[in-house]
Amino acid sequence: MDQYNKIIAEWARNIKPSALQDALNIKKNERLIAFTLGKPACELLSTENYLQAIKNVLNQGSEVFQYQPPLDQLKEQITEIMRYKGVECSPDEIFITSGAQQGMHLLVRLFLNIGGRVLLEEYNYPGFLQVLTPYQPELLTVTTDLENGIDLDAVENYLQYQTKPSLIYVVPNGSNPHGVSLTEKNCQKLAFLAEKYQVPVIEDDPYGLLQYAGAKTYSIRKFNSQWVFYVGSFSKLLAPSLRVGWLVVPKLFQNHLSILKEGADINLASFSQQSILAFFNLYSLQSHLKILIDEYTKRRNTMAESLKKYFPRETRFIVPNSGLFFWVKLPENIDVQELLKISLNEYQVAFIPANFFYVGKKFKQSPFIRLSFASHPENKILEGIERIGQAINQIPVKSLIF
Amino acid sequence: MDQYNKIIAEWARNIKPSALQDALNIKKNERLIAFTLGKPACELLSTENYLQAIKNVLNQGSEVFQYQPPLDQLKEQITEIMRYKGVECSPDEIFITSGAQQGMHLLVRLFLNIGGRVLLEEYNYPGFLQVLTPYQPELLTVTTDLENGIDLDAVENYLQYQTKPSLIYVVPNGSNPHGVSLTEKNCQKLAFLAEKYQVPVIEDDPYGLLQYAGAKTYSIRKFNSQWVFYVGSFSKLLAPSLRVGWLVVPKLFQNHLSILKEGADINLASFSQQSILAFFNLYSLQSHLKILIDEYTKRRNTMAESLKKYFPRETRFIVPNSGLFFWVKLPENIDVQELLKISLNEYQVAFIPANFFYVGKKFKQSPFIRLSFASHPENKILEGIERIGQAINQIPVKSLIF
Repeated sequence: MDQYNKIIAEWARNIKPSALQDALNIKKNERLIAFTLGKPACELLSTENYLQAIKNVLNQGSEVFQYQPPLDQLKEQITEIMRYKGVECSPDEIFITSGAQQGMHLLVRLFLNIGGRVLLEEYNYPGFLQVLTPYQPELLTVTTDLENGIDLDAVENYLQYQTKPSLIYVVPNGSNPHGVSLTEKNCQKLAFLAEKYQVPVIEDDPYGLLQYAGAKTYSIRKFNSQWVFYVGSFSKLLAPSLRVGWLVVPKLFQNHLSILKEGADINLASFSQQSILAFFNLYSLQSHLKILIDEYTKRRNTMAESLKKYFPRETRFIVPNSGLFFWVKLPENIDVQELLKISLNEYQVAFIPANFFYVGKKFKQSPFIRLSFASHPENKILEGIERIGQAINQIPVKSLIF
Repeated sequence: MDQYNKIIAEWARNIKPSALQDALNIKKNERLIAFTLGKPACELLSTENYLQAIKNVLNQGSEVFQYQPPLDQLKEQITEIMRYKGVECSPDEIFITSGAQQGMHLLVRLFLNIGGRVLLEEYNYPGFLQVLTPYQPELLTVTTDLENGIDLDAVENYLQYQTKPSLIYVVPNGSNPHGVSLTEKNCQKLAFLAEKYQVPVIEDDPYGLLQYAGAKTYSIRKFNSQWVFYVGSFSKLLAPSLRVGWLVVPKLFQNHLSILKEGADINLASFSQQSILAFFNLYSLQSHLKILIDEYTKRRNTMAESLKKYFPRETRFIVPNSGLFFWVKLPENIDVQELLKISLNEYQVAFIPANFFYVGKKFKQSPFIRLSFASHPENKILEGIERIGQAINQIPVKSLIF
């Protein structure tokens, strides 16, 4: 790399290896149970149904392979999805993206200058940090309440007394990594702050339609259409490999976003977008959601029961009402890094310790771990949690912190 | 937009409407013949064959919907494609992208700082300019020889005597808009200059496999694997709506590119990538290429013959041996903008005048227009060129420049 050091862009000279890539590359192993990534339960999307949707696309003829403007009909479908979430918007406020990740990427490019400020929770989604890296931003971090989410007093403090950020980033439902959802009142309050202080909020809501056991999720965008920029995704509704998401933004940003997206990967009606349109023309959102919610609710409940059964009595967690994650507080005397080693090497179970998600300035040892309950059937969840429980029991005394 | 002017990123405040988007949005009209965009002949990709490939993907089960690392097998397939072009490389030098546009986007992010310098031809692909816009770069432009392509003496002059650019951008085969291909000698020379002056060359080669009537195309990457960064695409080989392309880069850049791509839209084996892998497992590259080349050669020849038949005798053009475009020099006394108006309004034929592609500092009236011959069958090409010929004949005397 030395020969290139002078020629690569400044921000790229000291980047770290990618943790997601590492996690995806963990060697497959019959016995391994990974509670690491936020992988959805892809087996709940029927390959037969998806094939039927694709057949309907291909029956339209080879024009579906061509450069075409983004699909108005898909935008209409998305306004229906948003309405189902309680958000009223029109098709000309929808901008279709190559997944939610691209949605965030485009919004960040729109609002953030190099070295600009971003307000976000101190434990956060690493994928959002990857979006930010090239901008070398100043991060203004706030804490998270495990029942109510982002600390809105701290947010207002930054907006009111300190230098204003260029944007606020928040996952309102089943947040990553905390698994916490904002109350309706807090959604409304954050929307109010965005408007009052004229700071755009990026509302990243990949899990918003996954509402377990009758829980209700809310949206910040519902309460303000001018300062809240909503990011949605089909990755958890249908499948990650389709790479389709959307933004809900004031329509005057369509042109900016088109130009940005064209530069990034061309703004056209991709084959995936056409397949998703065809899929929801064949199968109703409600019926597909019911399949997902029923199964995720079972898996969530199984994980909660297993944690109670196999983890030490002092373990604390809140059962999430949306999303894919448990944020579990282990007894303080357990060295989480040591536990991860033993779990992986001796028990072949993987999870992610809190430090992985920390984006603040000074990390203090944390007793939290994140466990994804979404991608394994109930018996595997039970077995995996039991094995971590065994690892906790066998953790050597020297690793206990007194 | 006023309310947002303070909060959007500096570069985004004065962006222009997107010409590609406008062109895609031209109202469909039975009679309209558009020679504007570089649309491939998508009807040459059989929907039945593609469906068969997709069936093979879905037969693998729902894992194909999941987050998965980029496909090693597809990388191997791409090294075969590169070998077919005369370039030896290994799978660990291949980086799979969401189309060539993303490939360029990632390389530019890797090499260009804000306000950096880019060396390129003064008539150029507008999509590359869209990639550059957010960097507000200084453009160092050189001219193009219609038989030999980019002026390499001018390139060396910049590298040798003037401040060095951060990168050089070139389309080596069937270039856009000139339709010119570099000779093997010039490919070699450009590779030599890149190495000598340690400046990366982005070799954007979407048309490199389209070699008409026995012509041979070359690659700069063949002559240098360390300073030439190759951008390939399935958009013209299979279909634009699949959004799959690739880079050939020194393997030590894989990690940088992974991080960049994860930030942009997540780096995983998309459903499209899996379908393309399955497609070329079923059907050989050679046989599919033969279908494309046979048909494009016919269309190219028909356009050349039509131009000779229906355009004024003083018209000049070189028949392209690759790509999708004719770069046609009209007699100097024709006002090209006026001709476009008449062609569109009275004859319903569209083409793109030279000024659209100009990225230099001082545009002088140009007698050139770009015509894409790829996306219409021969009879439409004949008819469209005849209609432009009629428009030329009816151009009012006041529009003639004396």
